[in-house]
Amino acid sequence: MATSSLLLVLALQLSGALAHNNGLALTPQMGWNTYSHFGCDFSEDVIMSVAQSFIANGLPDYGYEYILLDDCWQAPARNETTGAPVADPTKFPNGLASLADQIHSLGLKFGIYSDAGKCVIMLDAFRRRRHFNSIASPRYTCGGRFASLGYETIDAQTYAEWGMDYLKYDNCYNEGQAGTPKLSYDRHANMSNALNATGRPILYSMCNWGEDGPWNFAPTIANSWRISGDIYDNYDRFDERCPCTSMLDCKLPGYQCAMTRIIDFVAPLSQKAGPNHWNDLDILQVGKGGMTYDEYVTHFSMWALLKSPLILGNDVTSMTNETLSIITNDAIIAVNQDANGSPVERRWNTPISTGGTLSLWSGSLVKNTFVAALMNTSPDAQTVSVNFTDVFIDQGASYQAGTYEIYDLWQKDDAGAWGASVGTYTGSIPNVQIGAHQVKVWKAVPTSSDSASRRDLSEL
Amino acid sequence: MATSSLLLVLALQLSGALAHNNGLALTPQMGWNTYSHFGCDFSEDVIMSVAQSFIANGLPDYGYEYILLDDCWQAPARNETTGAPVADPTKFPNGLASLADQIHSLGLKFGIYSDAGKCVIMLDAFRRRRHFNSIASPRYTCGGRFASLGYETIDAQTYAEWGMDYLKYDNCYNEGQAGTPKLSYDRHANMSNALNATGRPILYSMCNWGEDGPWNFAPTIANSWRISGDIYDNYDRFDERCPCTSMLDCKLPGYQCAMTRIIDFVAPLSQKAGPNHWNDLDILQVGKGGMTYDEYVTHFSMWALLKSPLILGNDVTSMTNETLSIITNDAIIAVNQDANGSPVERRWNTPISTGGTLSLWSGSLVKNTFVAALMNTSPDAQTVSVNFTDVFIDQGASYQAGTYEIYDLWQKDDAGAWGASVGTYTGSIPNVQIGAHQVKVWKAVPTSSDSASRRDLSEL
Amino acid sequence: MATSSLLLVLALQLSGALAHNNGLALTPQMGWNTYSHFGCDFSEDVIMSVAQSFIANGLPDYGYEYILLDDCWQAPARNETTGAPVADPTKFPNGLASLADQIHSLGLKFGIYSDAGKCVIMLDAFRRRRHFNSIASPRYTCGGRFASLGYETIDAQTYAEWGMDYLKYDNCYNEGQAGTPKLSYDRHANMSNALNATGRPILYSMCNWGEDGPWNFAPTIANSWRISGDIYDNYDRFDERCPCTSMLDCKLPGYQCAMTRIIDFVAPLSQKAGPNHWNDLDILQVGKGGMTYDEYVTHFSMWALLKSPLILGNDVTSMTNETLSIITNDAIIAVNQDANGSPVERRWNTPISTGGTLSLWSGSLVKNTFVAALMNTSPDAQTVSVNFTDVFIDQGASYQAGTYEIYDLWQKDDAGAWGASVGTYTGSIPNVQIGAHQVKVWKAVPTSSDSASRRDLSEL
Amino acid sequence: MATSSLLLVLALQLSGALAHNNGLALTPQMGWNTYSHFGCDFSEDVIMSVAQSFIANGLPDYGYEYILLDDCWQAPARNETTGAPVADPTKFPNGLASLADQIHSLGLKFGIYSDAGKCVIMLDAFRRRRHFNSIASPRYTCGGRFASLGYETIDAQTYAEWGMDYLKYDNCYNEGQAGTPKLSYDRHANMSNALNATGRPILYSMCNWGEDGPWNFAPTIANSWRISGDIYDNYDRFDERCPCTSMLDCKLPGYQCAMTRIIDFVAPLSQKAGPNHWNDLDILQVGKGGMTYDEYVTHFSMWALLKSPLILGNDVTSMTNETLSIITNDAIIAVNQDANGSPVERRWNTPISTGGTLSLWSGSLVKNTFVAALMNTSPDAQTVSVNFTDVFIDQGASYQAGTYEIYDLWQKDDAGAWGASVGTYTGSIPNVQIGAHQVKVWKAVPTSSDSASRRDLSEL
Repeated sequence: MATSSLLLVLALQLSGALAHNNGLALTPQMGWNTYSHFGCDFSEDVIMSVAQSFIANGLPDYGYEYILLDDCWQAPARNETTGAPVADPTKFPNGLASLADQIHSLGLKFGIYSDAGKCVIMLDAFRRRRHFNSIASPRYTCGGRFASLGYETIDAQTYAEWGMDYLKYDNCYNEGQAGTPKLSYDRHANMSNALNATGRPILYSMCNWGEDGPWNFAPTIANSWRISGDIYDNYDRFDERCPCTSMLDCKLPGYQCAMTRIIDFVAPLSQKAGPNHWNDLDILQVGKGGMTYDEYVTHFSMWALLKSPLILGNDVTSMTNETLSIITNDAIIAVNQDANGSPVERRWNTPISTGGTLSLWSGSLVKNTFVAALMNTSPDAQTVSVNFTDVFIDQGASYQAGTYEIYDLWQKDDAGAWGASVGTYTGSIPNVQIGAHQVKVWKAVPTSSDSASRRDLSEL
Repeated sequence: MATSSLLLVLALQLSGALAHNNGLALTPQMGWNTYSHFGCDFSEDVIMSVAQSFIANGLPDYGYEYILLDDCWQAPARNETTGAPVADPTKFPNGLASLADQIHSLGLKFGIYSDAGKCVIMLDAFRRRRHFNSIASPRYTCGGRFASLGYETIDAQTYAEWGMDYLKYDNCYNEGQAGTPKLSYDRHANMSNALNATGRPILYSMCNWGEDGPWNFAPTIANSWRISGDIYDNYDRFDERCPCTSMLDCKLPGYQCAMTRIIDFVAPLSQKAGPNHWNDLDILQVGKGGMTYDEYVTHFSMWALLKSPLILGNDVTSMTNETLSIITNDAIIAVNQDANGSPVERRWNTPISTGGTLSLWSGSLVKNTFVAALMNTSPDAQTVSVNFTDVFIDQGASYQAGTYEIYDLWQKDDAGAWGASVGTYTGSIPNVQIGAHQVKVWKAVPTSSDSASRRDLSEL
Repeated sequence: MATSSLLLVLALQLSGALAHNNGLALTPQMGWNTYSHFGCDFSEDVIMSVAQSFIANGLPDYGYEYILLDDCWQAPARNETTGAPVADPTKFPNGLASLADQIHSLGLKFGIYSDAGKCVIMLDAFRRRRHFNSIASPRYTCGGRFASLGYETIDAQTYAEWGMDYLKYDNCYNEGQAGTPKLSYDRHANMSNALNATGRPILYSMCNWGEDGPWNFAPTIANSWRISGDIYDNYDRFDERCPCTSMLDCKLPGYQCAMTRIIDFVAPLSQKAGPNHWNDLDILQVGKGGMTYDEYVTHFSMWALLKSPLILGNDVTSMTNETLSIITNDAIIAVNQDANGSPVERRWNTPISTGGTLSLWSGSLVKNTFVAALMNTSPDAQTVSVNFTDVFIDQGASYQAGTYEIYDLWQKDDAGAWGASVGTYTGSIPNVQIGAHQVKVWKAVPTSSDSASRRDLSEL
Repeated sequence: MATSSLLLVLALQLSGALAHNNGLALTPQMGWNTYSHFGCDFSEDVIMSVAQSFIANGLPDYGYEYILLDDCWQAPARNETTGAPVADPTKFPNGLASLADQIHSLGLKFGIYSDAGKCVIMLDAFRRRRHFNSIASPRYTCGGRFASLGYETIDAQTYAEWGMDYLKYDNCYNEGQAGTPKLSYDRHANMSNALNATGRPILYSMCNWGEDGPWNFAPTIANSWRISGDIYDNYDRFDERCPCTSMLDCKLPGYQCAMTRIIDFVAPLSQKAGPNHWNDLDILQVGKGGMTYDEYVTHFSMWALLKSPLILGNDVTSMTNETLSIITNDAIIAVNQDANGSPVERRWNTPISTGGTLSLWSGSLVKNTFVAALMNTSPDAQTVSVNFTDVFIDQGASYQAGTYEIYDLWQKDDAGAWGASVGTYTGSIPNVQIGAHQVKVWKAVPTSSDSASRRDLSEL
């Protein structure tokens, strides 16, 4: 190979490497997305009221920073002369660049949405979901809303010019350009390269619903990838529209996937995520009303421990104290944002005769500390001992024999901070009682560790 | 991207968009097809007698409008000079353009058939089916009947010149151009583009038997797509020639698929259909003799609610009153043709110990009304309460708690119209009794809804 | 499309059509192959002694006509100057053209073997099988034996020059050119086109072990295709080397597939075979010693009824009378060679608690006659009524209600001919008793049929 | 085809053939690899101390010869001018060519590692495994460590210049160039051709974790291929990170695959291996501490009999006598290195009610001798008769009826050599008692065989 052409290859190589190394998502991204609550019914005013609620509720202090537009921000057509994307002038009379400025001025970041296909909107699909029944005059053509397949360059450039910090990139109407990892990789790498070429760091959030195994092909091109069909606000109901029992070779990811089904889907995939490249379990449903307190606690805890992006989906302008208390548990968030970037793994998963399972999960945190979770999806309370041989299966014999101070991250200590100590244990935490649909989340700190601290938010 | 080439791309883009937006099949197409009753044994006289029976029986008043040729209309060879398709001069001595004129003059529409392969006829396969045993001298070559792979442009142009309104496009002998969504998409998009390029609106009905998931790749190029192997006139018998238990990744769709097996196949696919792009459950077998009255009522009801095209397959020139009464139930047809275009979804599916299942289906109609169906494929009568938490699972708590007037769409009211009210219910329809192989179909109208009407055919 | 290029396309089209329409295999081919008995250890003398045994045993009178070389006929290398294939000069000192002349002079046909890969011989695989343990100095390179990938034209031309009538085309070392139907189609169509281009009719027998579903892509290019991994001389033992439970999406066809497992494999595939394009169940093991008389009768019967090529694998120069009587049952052969070309279909398949199943198969023959088989793979005798609703499921009610004279094709009549009448039946053949590992094969002739004859070998 | 271009094709053909015929791995390769014990923490000193331990422990006398670098030998970047790979100057201050010289001077061979992707290091994945927790400052970019996709030629040339004898070629970050056998073949054949083109014999050890079935496509291009995700030092625990139950179509090979699970994975694949082309079951864990003596004996025995490369993973500079005694059982090694090159096949596999299975394996050795193994993965001792009908299923009736002297390869004879005779048997070895997690390995020598010897290491 001649030197000159080799250097060209090297240059391209480095460019490609930037996709994975755009400096973003060292820990899972946190923010809010329009889709779950507002559907297509949002505007500059809605977005700004959400952004202001972020400030009012102190959410940035907990790490929430991205305000994300989902589908329906588009004008009916691209710019006829330039082909550039255009925002809906009714919803955004001042344009998105102006809105980005306002959001940035609040110290927040702003994100946009597009689709690796030829048309985005799927209005008839939208209408079949709850929040979209009221759309007055659905359009059934693709002419009205435009997507990015074949327009990657101009779209990425425009997003950068508008000051966008984030792109969620969907998978509708991809014209059969799926079904092998190579087809899916090439289609999504085109946008990754286009985003990198803008020179603006834009977090790239892939949303191809786990087709063709993005955990295998996407770590070098994206910051996160959805692993399944869309979540819905339900604990464990099977819905025919989410028909697969595993995502490893699912031909129809669909939607209406119950929360704990997505946890099952991700169990073998934790191994594929890490800093800069995360499994995305979809938008948080906490506060939307379809689950109980215990179920939402499970939802928020497992999303955090599995290192999913934490993207709120509720109406943050109108939250109950209960909802706010869940999404601001800083001990749980600290696990999600731990610099180690290691998702928990499922250590065992025992079927319960009356339905559901009892499962144990654990993983590593910085400073030689650890996190474990016990999840009960059965309809009955369970009692079980949590053995350290299982919790520390990856760490080996000396860790399994160690002594740990255990903190319950859903109990508050005397000072009112999340993460009360529940004692010091060797070998196991015996006779743990856990109610139906509850989760226990513990941080384990070796007693002999001189430097480890119980909660060390400064790490983040 | 330079402006000039960009505009070219935009022009092509719009052209592609027309496939999905050819203005046709806003609701599922309705008509009749030669295949199930006549096989290859039809001619101009047969077609015209069918068309005249349509008029005599008033079928157009119910929405039936397409008269569709299936395979075997072709001459032994294309035109040697032009390569254009030629109709069988024996069957159609006046040509198909003339026949189209006659059909159009009756206010009906006319459709044709071809195949995305190199040869169509499969005479040996035909002979193995009942209606084709009498073919005197089967030919075993592909030279006699021609298909459209590689001839998309001239074939589409000729169909348009002949005045065709519809193309059913089959999948035989595709030379291995299947097995990934891209191969199947490209092969079928070629014909879609060719049809659009004619300037004549021609409904495009894909028939690749669900290979490679047309529900994923075809919505932008076709008006409907078959989702399985061929139906046969049987309620639930398993036949080895239809071997798959799901269509999500079926490698041999086959034929001889019993009617209720096709309903099982489509259950996870309802989410993929909507206006302009429908799941095609195959030709209706009502009136052909292989099922009971209750079974045909199930067949017609479920095809209608699942928003399948309603294509009659019986000999409409010789129908019993019973058959006519089933296919002209205007309350059921109104559900099929509801402008909302939302197929029902299966809400639960309970196995019965003696075989078969009891299942609940529901969906949305226009004007805030709803449809539900209870289907019993077991050999025994069943009693069950139909809970509104299940019926209105997609609508949420306020709908689940609502009160509805319930109309049974297979009972006639005092005026003799389909859809008698059976009372007003809150929370559930309790203690529903349903016989073996029966279906119950209900329309639910909120009692507080001031504008909703029970039957509103004017919507269509 | 301009006329001139169109005509070119038409010409190519016709050329392609000849693959399927080479005038051969209107009924399944019959003959003998070197592989099962001789492995690599054959020569001109062996071949001629087999051919002479064909004559001495009268096998051509029963339809056996092809003498087929399998692997190992090749010289160590192609002709260095021309690249043409060369036969092993030690085994064939007079060359294969000379041998073809001798075989043709006996009124027989001659066939050869190659592989759609880069090297054929797989000596180490051979050595692991019984017959090949004695090979003195196995070579582990591909240089010694050459295959046809990339040499299709010169190989086909040479085969034609040698006077070959048949090519078995294997699948080893295909360099990853498999895994989608298109890759497999293209690789095998290259040889099909090359064979057609020679102008000599050469039966094309594909042997890609069912990979990528040849029943879907091969009917237009081949006369038959293997549907599974290699058979071995065993009734029903599971061997790890034949690991798949179905061939519909098998990723490792392997070998050592027991005889009845191959019958299970083909059950859903009968629909895909017919005149000119057959499912090949692999070489007959009858007479090789690994099964009982009843098991070999089952083997020969089911191969015949399923319309597999009937290729003998035993040492025909040294057969027992029992073996000869099985392979010359002219009533069974008449079913295989029936001009209708319809394989039987499995109508039901009932598991037996002690293992195995009882299954019913039936199909159509010419002149409105039918064949049915009852197969018992369980270890115990069974008693069952064979209902005509099942036998005539494809023919419908009038046939199901008919009366038939029934002939048992494994009983001889008073004149010593196979196919003794066992009576006249309406509705069913009641209380059939069938021993472990036995088969019953019946021909059914409607009693009202004036022209049908019991055995009509003149049809063939 | 013109002669000149034909000769070019022939030349390329021969070049391709050399991949499989590079004269290496006539029997499975034996050696040691850095990965399992040292992870990334190695250097010239570590490598040399290992090499010296090889000599001190006499390992070369048993066949161990390759000292293999795994990942992390690389400098942060390629040579900026030439693009050539560069070794980490801190770890290897004298360079790898110098180290190769030192290793060669000890009579050993030296191997290197790369990856068929764009970046190798996966530091975050490493950190989640035990040995990598201590890495101080993990880097999350691909810029730091380089892989070989697109650099095959310069990398192979450099390895040859450095004097490398072996390449392990991994599969990370392959940019979606997987999912069909052709994509995987092409990517790996590029390196195979590059290695051959250097003129230096370099053993090519593929490590694509069984994706796309390398046993089908790799025999002509590689000397061995991994068949699964990474092993870990555990007998039979299911870990979610190794989720597949079979490797025939596994979409996520993963890692943390327990030892006996890998044995299950390879059972149907033995048929695909032989001289020059082996199934690689991954690095031996013997001596690492996660299994008992009986379990490691099973591990070493089954790897040997299945003809896996025997690559030590323990710290050979610090071994117990027990570990040394296992890995130097020359009777077991003789089976692995038997010139016949036939992996054992699983003859039966019986589930035990308390968990696990009892299984029988057997295969052929040179000089008409045989090997058999009985493996008990259940938690309880078992008693069973080992029937010669099963052991000699491939050899047929005369062998099944034969008489054999049986040697237990894990017992020492009076002279202290492995492989004590335990008697002479006909028909079976009756009432074999085998403890939980034990294996029995027998060599069978026909008593009538005049030339066969019990242990004939001189064959190797």
